[in-house]
Amino acid sequence: MVTSRRADAPARTASPRRRGAVLERAILDAALDQLGTVGWKGLTMEGVAAGAQTGKAAVYRRWPTKEDLVADALQTGLPPVGGVPDRGSVREDLLALCLRAREAMFSRPGTALQAVVHECDATQVERFHGVIFDAVVEPTIRLLREVVTRGIRRGEVRPDAANGYVFDAIPAMMMYRSKMCTSEWTDQDLEEMIDQLMMPLLRPAAP
Amino acid sequence: MVTSRRADAPARTASPRRRGAVLERAILDAALDQLGTVGWKGLTMEGVAAGAQTGKAAVYRRWPTKEDLVADALQTGLPPVGGVPDRGSVREDLLALCLRAREAMFSRPGTALQAVVHECDATQVERFHGVIFDAVVEPTIRLLREVVTRGIRRGEVRPDAANGYVFDAIPAMMMYRSKMCTSEWTDQDLEEMIDQLMMPLLRPAAP
Repeated sequence: MVTSRRADAPARTASPRRRGAVLERAILDAALDQLGTVGWKGLTMEGVAAGAQTGKAAVYRRWPTKEDLVADALQTGLPPVGGVPDRGSVREDLLALCLRAREAMFSRPGTALQAVVHECDATQVERFHGVIFDAVVEPTIRLLREVVTRGIRRGEVRPDAANGYVFDAIPAMMMYRSKMCTSEWTDQDLEEMIDQLMMPLLRPAAP
Repeated sequence: MVTSRRADAPARTASPRRRGAVLERAILDAALDQLGTVGWKGLTMEGVAAGAQTGKAAVYRRWPTKEDLVADALQTGLPPVGGVPDRGSVREDLLALCLRAREAMFSRPGTALQAVVHECDATQVERFHGVIFDAVVEPTIRLLREVVTRGIRRGEVRPDAANGYVFDAIPAMMMYRSKMCTSEWTDQDLEEMIDQLMMPLLRPAAP
């Protein structure tokens, strides 16, 4: 079922008179839907046009290739990652981030993003690298860096922990277990990951 | 190009008289090739039959569905994970494991496995879960457990580090960076991951 993700989005019974920004938004919306249902490999310009209740020509006029369309759909559809509340401890801050990451992963744009990441080969994903990096990877690293840096200031975290391998550990675990163990990441799983992986990784070394 | 992965595999110019185990092997081989080139979604019974230089009926006679065929192709094609040499330190042992894991990831059966893991949705991957777990996940965990347990005995590693989150960290990082950063995992990357992620994670806590 197609549901609109914006309060001001047009009704899906829109007439063929839609044009400009309204039609563009309907097409980008339909592209996200297709990614979530039939995936990157199953997405066709015809399917997107049908989903947006328009003609193929209207899609091709704006986006000459499937790659162009999907890049724009991700760029427009992925919500801002936002900030992170300061809950006073690195454990609580990380847990808050994990809960939010889980929500994002299983949202409509999150599912669309996963389809692209998993189905594209190395050459294709190159095309989306900028969008994915700017919209997801970089902001996530920024939040994790903030949490780790606060922990270092509090003396909770070792001073050399603010590095890329540490920042990637949570996103990597969430992707890996979703794929390999079809894990749904319960609240308890997330807490265990923080307690058994992140806290030992972050704490100061023996003097 | 199709290359045989067994010294005793039949030449690809085999005549239509192949039957039994020889023909089965040619079909399973062709299925691995298809996974590596066109992926899970692109694999067709027709394509596999063509690759094995046989007819579609010969494939369907043995494997009624694409799922059955791919499960058998993975089960037969994935090489044994093997043991791990004892190099005297957890750092050197982990590095040896990582080098071997990288080789396996980019081998023909490794590429085929990745196609299945990444392209299948949660319901489809359920069908392959047993094969993947038995052939890859479980043996990898067993090796990591051995390395970590040796480290605990030597006093190099904290006693509570032998747990699933720690064992999954390296496979998770290797999958994540391959997908998100199209990282090729140079020897230096692997060493940095050991030094910046695994060693701090494993070392004994401050008393």
